[in-house]
Amino acid sequence: MNTIITPWEVKGCVDYDKIVKDFGVSRIDETLLRRMKKITKKLHCFLRRNIFFAHRDLGFILDEYEKGNKFFLYTGRAPSGQVHLGHLIPWLFTKWLQDKFDVELWFQFPDEEKFLFKKDVTLEDTERYTNENMLDVIALGFNPKKTHFLIDTKHAGIMYKEAIKVAKLINFSVAKAAFGFTNEQNIGAIFYTSMQAVPAFLPSVLYKKKIPCLIPHAIDQDPHFRVTRDVIQKVGFSKPASIQCRFLPGLGGMHCDGKMSTAAGETTTIYVTDDAKTVKDKINKYAFSGGKDTTEEHRKYGGNPDVDVSYQWLTFFEEDDKKLQKIYHSYKSGALLSGELKAILIEKINAFLKEHQKKREEAKDKVDLFIYKPNK
Amino acid sequence: MNTIITPWEVKGCVDYDKIVKDFGVSRIDETLLRRMKKITKKLHCFLRRNIFFAHRDLGFILDEYEKGNKFFLYTGRAPSGQVHLGHLIPWLFTKWLQDKFDVELWFQFPDEEKFLFKKDVTLEDTERYTNENMLDVIALGFNPKKTHFLIDTKHAGIMYKEAIKVAKLINFSVAKAAFGFTNEQNIGAIFYTSMQAVPAFLPSVLYKKKIPCLIPHAIDQDPHFRVTRDVIQKVGFSKPASIQCRFLPGLGGMHCDGKMSTAAGETTTIYVTDDAKTVKDKINKYAFSGGKDTTEEHRKYGGNPDVDVSYQWLTFFEEDDKKLQKIYHSYKSGALLSGELKAILIEKINAFLKEHQKKREEAKDKVDLFIYKPNK
Repeated sequence: MNTIITPWEVKGCVDYDKIVKDFGVSRIDETLLRRMKKITKKLHCFLRRNIFFAHRDLGFILDEYEKGNKFFLYTGRAPSGQVHLGHLIPWLFTKWLQDKFDVELWFQFPDEEKFLFKKDVTLEDTERYTNENMLDVIALGFNPKKTHFLIDTKHAGIMYKEAIKVAKLINFSVAKAAFGFTNEQNIGAIFYTSMQAVPAFLPSVLYKKKIPCLIPHAIDQDPHFRVTRDVIQKVGFSKPASIQCRFLPGLGGMHCDGKMSTAAGETTTIYVTDDAKTVKDKINKYAFSGGKDTTEEHRKYGGNPDVDVSYQWLTFFEEDDKKLQKIYHSYKSGALLSGELKAILIEKINAFLKEHQKKREEAKDKVDLFIYKPNK
Repeated sequence: MNTIITPWEVKGCVDYDKIVKDFGVSRIDETLLRRMKKITKKLHCFLRRNIFFAHRDLGFILDEYEKGNKFFLYTGRAPSGQVHLGHLIPWLFTKWLQDKFDVELWFQFPDEEKFLFKKDVTLEDTERYTNENMLDVIALGFNPKKTHFLIDTKHAGIMYKEAIKVAKLINFSVAKAAFGFTNEQNIGAIFYTSMQAVPAFLPSVLYKKKIPCLIPHAIDQDPHFRVTRDVIQKVGFSKPASIQCRFLPGLGGMHCDGKMSTAAGETTTIYVTDDAKTVKDKINKYAFSGGKDTTEEHRKYGGNPDVDVSYQWLTFFEEDDKKLQKIYHSYKSGALLSGELKAILIEKINAFLKEHQKKREEAKDKVDLFIYKPNK
């Protein structure tokens, strides 16, 4: 596998080495991978391919697990429009962790976050997004008996009291440094990180015992948990561990900002509700190609899978290492043309989305099973 | 009455003229007093004596009331130890307003405030204080059918969503200017004013119609409501009106900080749970006297009721204007000695506290009637 790891690394503007250094997270090393494999039998392809590439205190989580002290998982989604494929990456991995370790998942929908941070987003917007976004999470197949949704404005009755315990320990200077606030930032946004901290210890409060917490998340959320980790022991709980993934690149390629984003619009994003034709058209039209300009040149010199978005996406969605490796070499040698590579991706994504959309419909009857009931 | 109003003004460090100017509140003038009297038949002695001396938009509240559009009252208590006589002043007046105007009262117990602003106060402390403080409010005889207690950590389920609407409109610069924050202030304390804003419009949210709000409060709380007033129209509600009172001076006299305070300790404060002997001892020992050093001198030159704390307290607790006026002149002339004046005050306070303590005991069975139930 060693020789194949490199191609799956995202190049471009997002410099993951710099992130590891700047954020102070650790690379997931061979020792940790071996320990994970011992427990899970087979590593998820996101681990094999270094898509989940960094962590904090993952060793502690495994130590505790081996002692029989199970952790719980915490991740979330700030409701803010339609879910796209990039959002699914940490959730798919979280689902795998839940299955393999048989643990609870606390899934936060901080429905105030985008309202507080974006001028034009209303609470009516975020309520609508929350209802939509919950369907996509449920569709991934989480265990309803072990999965609890927390919606900040609806669960504030149990969350606010915990949030202020954290808030008392974080001053404006710290928040300013972690999030780049100015004095013009509103006081709700300044407070918000306290609410994001809560699910990292709320289960310990509710179950009246200390339970280790593992947070799978995209690397951009790390500042929140870094701040949480700095103060949480003073509140009486262990630092949450975390495991971080790279971004699924936008269709436009890794020379842009490296992260799929709704804000960047249609040309870079595939939504989970896109139909098969839309997916096909978007990929054919917008997916940045690592191929040569003419078929002749491509056959002669070969394509570059390292910058080809279709290939990069397959590293996220094609679970079979052998198939993927074959595609890599075939494209690099020039045997596989760009159009053919796109066709492979289109088929893969559409098969995935067909299933997702079916389960998303079925999810509409299941929402209530997932929303945490404080009194149950 | 005009000639007697002046002696009831508090002199000393607290310069109410400066406060009126600096805070931008308005003095309650004769026109407003006449309008209040027309509705209430007889003015409360706190109005006759200029103890409630300032307001914002009181005219608007009376306009609406006369049009048949009733307001609701909002006041509160940040749980932080035992209630003393000074705390009762706005509440006694609020009770009078509820009776005369037959309106709802929303009484907030922001049990996070002191936790967030004082290093050594825990949430266990504030919970205990809340339970104690509620008894003192109930003991004053508020109508349980028209009085709703809001306890921030317990009612956050309905309050947080409203608080963030306000918070989005207040930036750190504004909070800094209003409350004198530094960058070392914690982010919970910075957010807090949003929670104090909520009861000013929560009834309008819950009843789904705009209801004017009148906030009776001691003048030191004005900055919170000033900030609220600046943004609340953008949330869709009218600016809350307010009516402000002077402080009951501490036993040590008006040459100190002019406000009774638990922090200043036993020598300046009478708690509502003090027994008759304690009250007697404290007043005899600590109440600053405006009398002369010897009986002879006092008889000859007379006492000074304007600085005498016992007399000043009677302006708050002796409702009968004629009795009060007689005491004033009698003390000023030297006919009434300091010890005798203290004896009058001791009797008055102990009669009041005997009744209060009885009702406080009875209140223990009534707490649940007062706590707001979101689902009822």
